[in-house]
Amino acid sequence: MPKVVDPEQRRAELAEAVWRLAAQHGVEAITVRRVAAETGWSTGALVHYFSDKESLLLFAFETVAMRAGARMAGHRDLPPRRRARAVLAEALPLDEERRAEVRVWFGLLGLAVTRPALARAQRRGYQNWRAELSEALEEGGLGGPDQAAALVAFVDGMGVQAFCDPRAWPPAKLERLLDMELDALV
Amino acid sequence: MPKVVDPEQRRAELAEAVWRLAAQHGVEAITVRRVAAETGWSTGALVHYFSDKESLLLFAFETVAMRAGARMAGHRDLPPRRRARAVLAEALPLDEERRAEVRVWFGLLGLAVTRPALARAQRRGYQNWRAELSEALEEGGLGGPDQAAALVAFVDGMGVQAFCDPRAWPPAKLERLLDMELDALV
Repeated sequence: MPKVVDPEQRRAELAEAVWRLAAQHGVEAITVRRVAAETGWSTGALVHYFSDKESLLLFAFETVAMRAGARMAGHRDLPPRRRARAVLAEALPLDEERRAEVRVWFGLLGLAVTRPALARAQRRGYQNWRAELSEALEEGGLGGPDQAAALVAFVDGMGVQAFCDPRAWPPAKLERLLDMELDALV
Repeated sequence: MPKVVDPEQRRAELAEAVWRLAAQHGVEAITVRRVAAETGWSTGALVHYFSDKESLLLFAFETVAMRAGARMAGHRDLPPRRRARAVLAEALPLDEERRAEVRVWFGLLGLAVTRPALARAQRRGYQNWRAELSEALEEGGLGGPDQAAALVAFVDGMGVQAFCDPRAWPPAKLERLLDMELDALV
């Protein structure tokens, strides 16, 4: 009797494998061959889900964007200032989950130069993040689009520093500088 | 009669080719084969200068770090506040030269995950930048290591945004937000 396969479950299983590879071995480990080895699938079965390397990279990126976006949206009931801080902190490498996300996010950054779909996904990711933050700032009369753009750039830049030099950027320092920046700008 | 070859001139010629490839086609174009095609050298001759792909990537990265670092050091005679601004602006994509540097810098970011020498070069690049800025801030009593770290993160983050979405980050906006941030922090 053929095994009944739930496509949703298969996709989740694949997402997990792509994620594990990227978080542990860097984005260069995201290849159809390595995902096949990680999941025990044949490369032929994988091609059914991902036609090429770009679709795998895109999948890894969208996984981060979706996870972080969902957490950011979960802070909408907070008062504006606290919501703004929470939205920004979701993108900082403050725990193992977010450290893995930051590794994948910045690991993929340079690969978008020659991959338009990935570049579009990155632009959309930043737009959504700025929109979520702008809403909080405007609701509280704390700032407009310039402040939102500046705060996103600041937090993103700390992510880059922590990505390059994790030991020099422990969570306490990331949070201290975030609060300094918020006090200065909003 | 064998051609007399000046090793320094050869290196400069190679640097130019690696640079051109990375700036125009993204860092994935930096391969021994493409550099050979670009320069008209044999891959065998190239291996004499670059034993592997990592040494080529490192060379591209060091080229950016050296160019930007030299320009930053050129502002040491300015008064502290203007020097600090000038040091930061050297890393923003405000003209074609700096846009190319930003493309190479962030293009290489993710490739360091599995390449320790490149990762060390990136850490050193950020340390030198922070040191140059700290000197200006401390000389003018404008701030300490936290302010320097925050400003570098901010400018670096704007570089990421402009790298992902150049049309949304024209030079006028980059400079306006830089001044807003400087007014707020120092």
